[in-house]
Amino acid sequence: MSREIAAEPLTPEAFAPFGDVIEARGAPSFRINGGMCDRHHDLARLDFTGPGNPRANISIGFGRPYALPLRLTLVERHPLGSQAFVPMTEDPFLVIVAPDENGVPGRPRAFLTAPGQGVNYLRNTWHGVLTPLGRASNFLIVDRVGGGNNLEEFSYAEPWIVNAV
Amino acid sequence: MSREIAAEPLTPEAFAPFGDVIEARGAPSFRINGGMCDRHHDLARLDFTGPGNPRANISIGFGRPYALPLRLTLVERHPLGSQAFVPMTEDPFLVIVAPDENGVPGRPRAFLTAPGQGVNYLRNTWHGVLTPLGRASNFLIVDRVGGGNNLEEFSYAEPWIVNAV
Repeated sequence: MSREIAAEPLTPEAFAPFGDVIEARGAPSFRINGGMCDRHHDLARLDFTGPGNPRANISIGFGRPYALPLRLTLVERHPLGSQAFVPMTEDPFLVIVAPDENGVPGRPRAFLTAPGQGVNYLRNTWHGVLTPLGRASNFLIVDRVGGGNNLEEFSYAEPWIVNAV
Repeated sequence: MSREIAAEPLTPEAFAPFGDVIEARGAPSFRINGGMCDRHHDLARLDFTGPGNPRANISIGFGRPYALPLRLTLVERHPLGSQAFVPMTEDPFLVIVAPDENGVPGRPRAFLTAPGQGVNYLRNTWHGVLTPLGRASNFLIVDRVGGGNNLEEFSYAEPWIVNAV
């Protein structure tokens, strides 16, 4: 089986098994501020569980860029909480996920975002690290703070090669 | 008393009585992803209370722009939850807040953001509506979903005029 993976455009349909696309797509949920603001409401399945008074927090990740083709060996998942990444720029970034196959990640999939798109990984979903392209940039992160072990890492025996769309 | 208000640069110190500046300022809280990402951790005092199973949600507000000088009459507050606005672009925006004086808002203050800055209004803090400048743009919103009445509005009898820095 080829170890080459072609990045796909990020769409809510393709990404649904792994999480939510956070974007202002389609008609707004409602309009506020006398029509000056369209609100696209409640776009991510936030899910925080486990010990130690779990709660949401807002952080910023300043991510340094990666080049394509990307050599991928490491993925991770968070058994106790969802994790959202939303760019604070209009730059695209790479989103890598993998299905779970009996406790280990299967063949990865890679998605390239369009400007205005972020993602929310569902709790316990295998994913790659934050992967900006082109330049270093800030991402808003909404994930879990609490007790317990919320990180599981996995290294593939052989690397996958992720190519541009 | 003059009804003219000069917008100030947004700093954590000046904004502290009203909320948090969400930005990647100073040394990161920790480094992740083999040094490729600086995490600035837990930057906002999220605070969701009241009836109806209150919880955090992630929404997007697509805000149409305002021009300066701005004629301000309306402010609002949310007695049951904090509310964060973080731009998904590098455009500056205007942040208007007001101290509470025996249940009504006092003289407003206006802050102009720098690229990479968002804000989190503390629960029950008087603030203006989402105020992009220059062009329409997307803002990530993290605020409360739940039951109860979470909106209080106030209209000043005379307008305030907000000017550029």
